[in-house]
Amino acid sequence: MNKLTPTITTGALPASAKIYVNGRLHPEIRVPMRRIDLHPSAGEPPVVVYDPSGPYTDPDTLTDIASGLSPLRRDWIRARGDVEEYEGRTIKPADNGFVEGKRLTAEFPVNRKPLRARDGLAVTQMEYARAGIITPEMEFVAIRENLGRDAARKAARDGESFGAAIPDHVTPEFVRDEIARGRAIIPANINHPEAEPMIIGRNFLVKINANMGTSAVTSSMEEEVDKMVWAIRWGADTVMDLSTGKNIHNTREWIIRNSPVPIGTVPLYQALEKVNGIAEDLTWEVFRDTLIEQAEQGVDYFTIHAGVRLHYIPLTVERVTGIVSRGGSIMAKWCLHHHRESFLYEHFDEICDICRAYDVSFSLGDGLRPGSVADANDAAQFAELETLGELTQIAWAKGCQVMIEGPGHVAMHKIKENMDKQLEVCGEAPFYTLGPLTTDIAPGYDHITSGIGAAMIGWYGTAMLCYVTPKEHLGLPDRDDVKTGVITYKIAAHAADLAKGHPAAQIRDDALSRARFEFRWEDQFNLSLDPDTAREFHDQTLPKEAHKTAHFCSMCGPKFCSMRISHDIRAEAQKEGMEKMAEKYREGGDLYMPVDEIAKD
Amino acid sequence: MNKLTPTITTGALPASAKIYVNGRLHPEIRVPMRRIDLHPSAGEPPVVVYDPSGPYTDPDTLTDIASGLSPLRRDWIRARGDVEEYEGRTIKPADNGFVEGKRLTAEFPVNRKPLRARDGLAVTQMEYARAGIITPEMEFVAIRENLGRDAARKAARDGESFGAAIPDHVTPEFVRDEIARGRAIIPANINHPEAEPMIIGRNFLVKINANMGTSAVTSSMEEEVDKMVWAIRWGADTVMDLSTGKNIHNTREWIIRNSPVPIGTVPLYQALEKVNGIAEDLTWEVFRDTLIEQAEQGVDYFTIHAGVRLHYIPLTVERVTGIVSRGGSIMAKWCLHHHRESFLYEHFDEICDICRAYDVSFSLGDGLRPGSVADANDAAQFAELETLGELTQIAWAKGCQVMIEGPGHVAMHKIKENMDKQLEVCGEAPFYTLGPLTTDIAPGYDHITSGIGAAMIGWYGTAMLCYVTPKEHLGLPDRDDVKTGVITYKIAAHAADLAKGHPAAQIRDDALSRARFEFRWEDQFNLSLDPDTAREFHDQTLPKEAHKTAHFCSMCGPKFCSMRISHDIRAEAQKEGMEKMAEKYREGGDLYMPVDEIAKD
Repeated sequence: MNKLTPTITTGALPASAKIYVNGRLHPEIRVPMRRIDLHPSAGEPPVVVYDPSGPYTDPDTLTDIASGLSPLRRDWIRARGDVEEYEGRTIKPADNGFVEGKRLTAEFPVNRKPLRARDGLAVTQMEYARAGIITPEMEFVAIRENLGRDAARKAARDGESFGAAIPDHVTPEFVRDEIARGRAIIPANINHPEAEPMIIGRNFLVKINANMGTSAVTSSMEEEVDKMVWAIRWGADTVMDLSTGKNIHNTREWIIRNSPVPIGTVPLYQALEKVNGIAEDLTWEVFRDTLIEQAEQGVDYFTIHAGVRLHYIPLTVERVTGIVSRGGSIMAKWCLHHHRESFLYEHFDEICDICRAYDVSFSLGDGLRPGSVADANDAAQFAELETLGELTQIAWAKGCQVMIEGPGHVAMHKIKENMDKQLEVCGEAPFYTLGPLTTDIAPGYDHITSGIGAAMIGWYGTAMLCYVTPKEHLGLPDRDDVKTGVITYKIAAHAADLAKGHPAAQIRDDALSRARFEFRWEDQFNLSLDPDTAREFHDQTLPKEAHKTAHFCSMCGPKFCSMRISHDIRAEAQKEGMEKMAEKYREGGDLYMPVDEIAKD
Repeated sequence: MNKLTPTITTGALPASAKIYVNGRLHPEIRVPMRRIDLHPSAGEPPVVVYDPSGPYTDPDTLTDIASGLSPLRRDWIRARGDVEEYEGRTIKPADNGFVEGKRLTAEFPVNRKPLRARDGLAVTQMEYARAGIITPEMEFVAIRENLGRDAARKAARDGESFGAAIPDHVTPEFVRDEIARGRAIIPANINHPEAEPMIIGRNFLVKINANMGTSAVTSSMEEEVDKMVWAIRWGADTVMDLSTGKNIHNTREWIIRNSPVPIGTVPLYQALEKVNGIAEDLTWEVFRDTLIEQAEQGVDYFTIHAGVRLHYIPLTVERVTGIVSRGGSIMAKWCLHHHRESFLYEHFDEICDICRAYDVSFSLGDGLRPGSVADANDAAQFAELETLGELTQIAWAKGCQVMIEGPGHVAMHKIKENMDKQLEVCGEAPFYTLGPLTTDIAPGYDHITSGIGAAMIGWYGTAMLCYVTPKEHLGLPDRDDVKTGVITYKIAAHAADLAKGHPAAQIRDDALSRARFEFRWEDQFNLSLDPDTAREFHDQTLPKEAHKTAHFCSMCGPKFCSMRISHDIRAEAQKEGMEKMAEKYREGGDLYMPVDEIAKD
């Protein structure tokens, strides 16, 4: 599979080095972070930032997608003594959409037997947490959340967290407690040992998810693997593989074996492929088989649309945009055809049994989310939310980790109600929302219409934000769209962290702002979410190397640079005290370069 | 000047026609709107939207930038009998930055004598409003704000306006009252009769401004004129000409003569050019001369940084990013050098006398706005705001129209305090903010970091949002950047209108959502803020004409289209009643096209 390798983007981001922090309780763990080094003239320590990009950005680690990533969690999982290796399910033609011959893509070259819980045990992080056990995964995420800080920050906290309980410093015990209470999850299937643990919860950094997948119309497996690597390079914390169509099993295997982030899926999509796309032909048996298949592969969380109940469907009939969730509409069709309650709802107990045996987290799907601002916060949406709350309690009773999916399309004044209701109804299980889009009138820019809503709902308490790309509603995202979606959602998540008062969030803002104020252009680029674009935009107007240290930029030119002027003011004030500044200014010559000298450049 | 004309973008947007609504009190007024026609299959009336793009999008109006636009307000202004024509100021070499010979660009070919108030009268919309006069300008904006609706909407209002008083239907009398109270302004210099009146106030649609201008480093006059036309094509409600450098007078004349939207400036920039960029050499006389020069040309609003007082400057010394407003830093330097109170503050009365003689509105500048989230809402910022409140009262006493500029860089949890304080301190004068940017870590994406803050502060009550382009902090925006900035801010403004509960805002969302749900792709494109981009994105995956009516898109493909499924559900429900739906579903065949048929496309 060497032909694939060159398409994978590797290498560090500018001025960045991968560093690893060791555990204390579990000295063997190595928590990756990205250290951004500043110019020596800054006189400042490097800035350490959260880094979900995995080994691909570590020049000291060779990656080969035909081998997959190193299974860093394998020994932790086995050491717990509660799992067994077994002969997994055999791949069936249906798993890859009945594709044959040349159109069937290659199986992943390495075959590994799956693990599952022994004797009906729960092997979930929640179950360990309740038993008082701090797993390596828990310590891993505790270190990760502190962004390299050894101890609580001394400075006063700022922010409004709407009742969240963000600590000054995250301890492994705090993580354990949050997971035991169901307020946070670590999506970590025992069959995805390659993943670097991460935590999703209101009292931690806001996370983002990037969707990708093949569909009936376009895309290839190679593109999808690279899209995953590309998405995490720019900051995606989890990736959902929403593939439909052919080769779905094989593509997913390639993705999981190479993914350092949790992978989520909507198993219903694959189940539907197995019954040739006829929703009415879906059965619990086909669905169950798909859950096992994906659990054995290592999917970390499942979207399960078990809240779409038969009697809620009439509530959607008067809507402007009906049911816009694919999973929701498939289940609605099934329920109506059979005039029966959803098999997902009826078999929810059994789904929990599967999830607890592999530690697959639930992402309880919002099949009745609004698809337009007209439909936001309506009876159908909130009826389903009540059911999701009920299902949360069932899953928790089985020791399963749970998060709750949320909308959708919601105008700004209705966003907070979503968060408040979710917290109340779902017992503070983490909320995971798609946007929300705050207006419907800008297809082509829905990363922005939704980025606004995402930042706000993240501030109010949503734990993970599902990205939206510029192509939403219009087509399949390409590489650039994925990057734009990820960066937009990193902005939303970070803006939320700042507003919530996360104790370390503002470190990066302040470092970048100081770099800006001190005309350290390289540092400004390197500290930004997208150094390549920042540099490129700057260089479009001022390409010369000398301009990287120029005390002005192209926006105002040298004569008008406010930063430069206020820098002069500050320098004077520091030297002389403010009261003497006026006199001094009169004496000194002008610090400006003559404008004509610049115009010549 | 024929060489210029071809660079100007003209022509209607897709499926759009320019319509004009006549006045009742003033039958001669013709208020432009854009009518978007839908496909006959929609069975829906056209959607009428606000349209600041002027005659450039009216195929029935010939525009020639060497002649300028038709002076539609000329007769209204003269009919009031309170102005006189006079020999204006002569253009001096300093007005164009002392540029000579070939580098001096052409003067605008048509020379028109300026008007000013007779006998010290105030010729401002505020003064007329206080006198109980409903001017044509007031009726014009009343009609404009109603988006073609004849009467109040029957439907229940939705939204949270935080104490605004948005009426169900805007009457000319309501406009008059709001202007008399200082809660809204119509920026409308008597020497800019080409402008189509528009209103800025909390109880009206949220407006957006686009900045442009030449600078010392790049840009040409021709580009600037076209950028103005380009910006209003996509929805900019006003344009600020922030040119610095050479040819500043001549460029501005070309822009104003061709602008159907109000033009704002920061006169200090040109004044500084006149003293060769030496802030200390600025004098009241040079500044006053510049105000007269620009008032005679027709500038509709002046940013005046009169709130940067000498004793506030020390408050900025400990900031992370000092003073980031160009005007603010220039004044700070002047104050310190002379150790004197700002001449803008000391001569504010006289500035008011100029503004009332031409009806130039004030945009009281926030010279001490924060340039980083670290500096938000600090003592310097709020001290200046207090002064702006004091100046507002002085300007109002002189009959001048006033709006107040706001930040800047502000994390989400500190945004509302800005709005609340501004309303309280500045007597509800309209707020006009730059963003705010909700994080500092994304140069290259500051249209998005700021679009989030803009939507929120617009919701809270800001009347006009100053756009930020992707190039902010990095370089000068090009044509694409201007469009991206404008569309992003149209999104923010519209999201704010929706959340405030503007009675007509959701009409466009609902029409677009219905088009989406009914697979009327062309209607979906045409109703969007940027039809060209929406269509292009769609066509990247599904280019065929047949796909414009396809009942699916490339995202899910036909088998998974939730919209299609829920459409089926609705159709059945309408025909049969919900209770019979399940049975019906069993009988009917599948509506899906076989997936392979699509794959062949």
